[in-house]
Amino acid sequence: MFSGAQISLYPMTDDFVRVILGAIGALEPYRPHFRIETDDISTLIVGPPEQLFPAMRDLFVSAAGGGIHCVLAATASRGCPGEPDDPICTPIAGSRHDRPLAERIAAALEKVQSAPKTGQNVAAQFSLYPLGSGHHMDEIYGCIDFLKQSGVFDRSKNFCTKLRGDAGQVFATLSEAFLRFGAPEGHVALDVKVSANSPTKA
Amino acid sequence: MFSGAQISLYPMTDDFVRVILGAIGALEPYRPHFRIETDDISTLIVGPPEQLFPAMRDLFVSAAGGGIHCVLAATASRGCPGEPDDPICTPIAGSRHDRPLAERIAAALEKVQSAPKTGQNVAAQFSLYPLGSGHHMDEIYGCIDFLKQSGVFDRSKNFCTKLRGDAGQVFATLSEAFLRFGAPEGHVALDVKVSANSPTKA
Repeated sequence: MFSGAQISLYPMTDDFVRVILGAIGALEPYRPHFRIETDDISTLIVGPPEQLFPAMRDLFVSAAGGGIHCVLAATASRGCPGEPDDPICTPIAGSRHDRPLAERIAAALEKVQSAPKTGQNVAAQFSLYPLGSGHHMDEIYGCIDFLKQSGVFDRSKNFCTKLRGDAGQVFATLSEAFLRFGAPEGHVALDVKVSANSPTKA
Repeated sequence: MFSGAQISLYPMTDDFVRVILGAIGALEPYRPHFRIETDDISTLIVGPPEQLFPAMRDLFVSAAGGGIHCVLAATASRGCPGEPDDPICTPIAGSRHDRPLAERIAAALEKVQSAPKTGQNVAAQFSLYPLGSGHHMDEIYGCIDFLKQSGVFDRSKNFCTKLRGDAGQVFATLSEAFLRFGAPEGHVALDVKVSANSPTKA
């Protein structure tokens, strides 16, 4: 199964190049596990699905730590039939997302509750797209059940769900949504924006 | 059919609030046709599917016109079964996307070729998600055929397609991809980032 993400970081400052270059160092511990490619729009990371969101969390917390208003926008994908299988993407732990929805929701909640806090408060909104299945709305509604119990659920919006809380819990929630819902070997995409230090009142 | 988009504008400058507030004026001509709601992450526009991308184009060209590095990120959606039908979303022209792929491709190309130029050069990357259908890859491959002939095709990337050219042609291409591919009354989502004035060489 091929898995990865296209990631962009937007620091709202004249000094955006320095903020981006400074934050990229946070990806160092992940480099042995990932293929990484950058162009003028985004950085591609290809690797184990469980490590995509921890890598994004560390990148984003590093960029936002200085107090600048920053946004991370990413498109994560697993199981795309148009991509070749890549051994680098093999999940480390055994996948359990062929289990019934209720079991997957419980396992996801456990992961979120045990995720370490980062001290960085964030708001996020995302959409989950389970593709090529006749039951895509069942999986979406199951995922929404999980989100409402996650402790970081903010509200449902048109086309997406909004989360708010510590970056540790928010990125863990995104990761669980991505890993545990949709067909086990199916094509699942997740689009997300994460924002910190916005001057706009929520 | 419900249709709309969640739109965010990221000007990479200390002065980002002024740039955003200045650009929002470009949405004025669309206000009679749209419902518009803003929070700290994005602005929702709900209205006729044909007008979503022209509105985004005018907003983005206005923001990027001063030469600041800007990115627009948006999630557009039509036919989501979780959303109520809304009379405001009724397409103005008759939809033709129940026709065979070859016919839809020809019609889309005609629209792109006749789109007015804006003088603003942009790069964009996007993913199209035709949901809930067993044939989602057929529609994606048909859309890719169209993109390759659009005149603004840059290259295929993992999980997305990259476009480059005048904002007029690029936003027209995005609009055609959104309107003409996927089931006619089906659920289609499109995720896009558009960038201008990047200091990074492509």
